[in-house]
Amino acid sequence: MKEIIAVIRMNMVNQTKNALALEGFPAFTCTKVFGRGKKPVNDQVPEESFLMNSNIPAEVAESISEKHRLLPKRLLSITVPDKDVDRVVNTIIEINQTSNPGDGKIFVLSVGEAVRVRTGETGEQAII
Amino acid sequence: MKEIIAVIRMNMVNQTKNALALEGFPAFTCTKVFGRGKKPVNDQVPEESFLMNSNIPAEVAESISEKHRLLPKRLLSITVPDKDVDRVVNTIIEINQTSNPGDGKIFVLSVGEAVRVRTGETGEQAII
Amino acid sequence: MKEIIAVIRMNMVNQTKNALALEGFPAFTCTKVFGRGKKPVNDQVPEESFLMNSNIPAEVAESISEKHRLLPKRLLSITVPDKDVDRVVNTIIEINQTSNPGDGKIFVLSVGEAVRVRTGETGEQAII
Repeated sequence: MKEIIAVIRMNMVNQTKNALALEGFPAFTCTKVFGRGKKPVNDQVPEESFLMNSNIPAEVAESISEKHRLLPKRLLSITVPDKDVDRVVNTIIEINQTSNPGDGKIFVLSVGEAVRVRTGETGEQAII
Repeated sequence: MKEIIAVIRMNMVNQTKNALALEGFPAFTCTKVFGRGKKPVNDQVPEESFLMNSNIPAEVAESISEKHRLLPKRLLSITVPDKDVDRVVNTIIEINQTSNPGDGKIFVLSVGEAVRVRTGETGEQAII
Repeated sequence: MKEIIAVIRMNMVNQTKNALALEGFPAFTCTKVFGRGKKPVNDQVPEESFLMNSNIPAEVAESISEKHRLLPKRLLSITVPDKDVDRVVNTIIEINQTSNPGDGKIFVLSVGEAVRVRTGETGEQAII
């Protein structure tokens, strides 16, 4: 089993939820998070220009500039059998890919065990 | 070491916290999340019936019906030595099992390293 | 790749964010959580004394006493190549170590795959 963690735009949760349900993956968890990735410096902005023209390396200037504050995002977590990982990942990409920075990231982690609390079922039986 | 992630009803946090403390596991993290699992379709509800009678497969109809919106849940994370996993999982099941849908799920993930920030202790010393 | 999860004081997010950016790790996710670790019993507090003098083992008394309720914390998640784990962990420790209880914990988990949604890049290309 794998846990698929997707950090996406906050306004993309419903579309992603519906697309995953149509693919047969209705069960997931959503968390409000704040995040940021690596965005290109806009050197027309005075504050950015100042940092760019200083002795601070460009990459660092980008990182600490105020334009790169944390943005509200949504973190989805879906646990699925190994064989379904590609389908879930591709569905999330298809729905969330806008070609603009901020589309998000997906991470895949191994899950050793799963349990459905109501029935005590374990393994893939607990998640399908 | 293992991270035990439990997604439970929001009104079960205190009972679960106390039960875990009595078992010797006072340390954990709690996050407000929204989630849903797979619930049975109630075909007496007009909206559900409509979906059931359409060409959409029952499982999908269930998934996209408005009755299956995201519900507030709580996500507990407890990191323990391997030998304690069963005890923690069983304690969480015991407290949260009501036999009704929505009791929650438990996931177990491997943790490669743990560090207590204050002392720099690593491994199981950091979590016991 | 590894996911580094740090549970830290809520007022330490900005300093940690800036220190990580200066080290070359600007990308991360921050979540509001509630948590607690294991704190020393203060036996001058009547409630604690009562628990200490009862038949309940000291460790358990500590755990269930009202002084040990959940505190607001911040959970940072940073995914980096294996070779950068020590640098990120040490940076977090350096910034957050006050020698007082509540400095936080760090956990390291293996990440099997990462994807940048915008480009479809996978592996370390997705996170650097």
